[in-house]
Amino acid sequence: MHEVLAVVLRIREGRAGALLWQRALDPDAGRWALPGGTLGPDEDVETSVRRQLAEKVDVREVAHVEQLSVFSDPARVSGKRRIATAFLGLVPSDADPELPEDTAWHEVEDLPATAFDHAAIVAAARDRLRAKLSYTNLGFALAPAEFTISALREHYVAALGHEVSATNLQRVLTRRGLLEPTGEVVPSGRSGGRPAAVFRFTDRGMRVTDAFAVLRPPARPGGPRDGVLP
Amino acid sequence: MHEVLAVVLRIREGRAGALLWQRALDPDAGRWALPGGTLGPDEDVETSVRRQLAEKVDVREVAHVEQLSVFSDPARVSGKRRIATAFLGLVPSDADPELPEDTAWHEVEDLPATAFDHAAIVAAARDRLRAKLSYTNLGFALAPAEFTISALREHYVAALGHEVSATNLQRVLTRRGLLEPTGEVVPSGRSGGRPAAVFRFTDRGMRVTDAFAVLRPPARPGGPRDGVLP
Repeated sequence: MHEVLAVVLRIREGRAGALLWQRALDPDAGRWALPGGTLGPDEDVETSVRRQLAEKVDVREVAHVEQLSVFSDPARVSGKRRIATAFLGLVPSDADPELPEDTAWHEVEDLPATAFDHAAIVAAARDRLRAKLSYTNLGFALAPAEFTISALREHYVAALGHEVSATNLQRVLTRRGLLEPTGEVVPSGRSGGRPAAVFRFTDRGMRVTDAFAVLRPPARPGGPRDGVLP
Repeated sequence: MHEVLAVVLRIREGRAGALLWQRALDPDAGRWALPGGTLGPDEDVETSVRRQLAEKVDVREVAHVEQLSVFSDPARVSGKRRIATAFLGLVPSDADPELPEDTAWHEVEDLPATAFDHAAIVAAARDRLRAKLSYTNLGFALAPAEFTISALREHYVAALGHEVSATNLQRVLTRRGLLEPTGEVVPSGRSGGRPAAVFRFTDRGMRVTDAFAVLRPPARPGGPRDGVLP
């Protein structure tokens, strides 16, 4: 039996949250589980995960979805063997999708009792996100459409689990051509501080941001933006 | 039913080759297929792919293996449904493993008649390799242990499918700390040319080479080398 599972992550109030639902029935009744379920006979895993996610959350709110990994330890669930294709999904922090009664966001670093091997799958998704933030523009799928650098920094700190300086974050993302100013400013949160510039991501589809320019294919009209050697 | 498949790639004489075996029996008798087979009841997909690869090639020659993707189109094979977890494997160009009679290297860009959806899986593996060459040190798994820049360039050109200048390749890999000179030189291939310096990769395990330093976790003793901002 094949199942699909989705780890949907969102940053809120400086914490990374995962979307989980509480199982009403055994096995593992009362424990919290990832959205997903059995692959249908007429669908591939991508179609299936979107169908099954839609039972828990408005999938239009999910800004990015990618295959994470296959989890296939023979002992991962008791009873009949289930092999899982897990996906990583990201929801921007300003989206607040309606959730069914059995479903809630839980802090990734403070999960409640989880079903099966789902805690390990959440950890794998967190690690994938951390890695990709460092060589892609994937922050676009966590941040709201427009943000100050200070607000963006909070998203990166929460996702990465360690401190990041706002100055360095702005410098590295700007140098790679990932950010652009909207031209707006907002009042500084600190009394007497200068107004803060508002930015947005230049792209809202994932791309590797820091590919060695010399190793990339020649630019095609309409193709992805060229990498630029620093 | 779940199966595992391996796309094992190797660069030779300026071409990327994939390891394929010719099916003796129907379905698709006579066509060329990827190594692999049905997942056993007591193994996970990683264990299974290594077991099944070992039937075709000395797996000690495979320098890198990673999960590629799940292929789950309901129509991908006729008859009973099979969901495949595909892996990418890389063999250095100076390895020349013994192969069984039914098995051979075939040029990725000039495949013979392939079984099922295996041509699409080979193409996905080629694309993954191309992408990863541009933000990781994965060249180590294609190149011999020691090489001139000119020889390394041939590997990159073959894997990427487009021209790369030796000067730029050396510059970008050196700047990222991926290459180090062995101290040896070899006679230039061109008459009258200067002797060419010999290099090796500094690491022989995969790492993201160009992660934004500010987004990486603080260095740990014994941990991976810090990224360095240019």
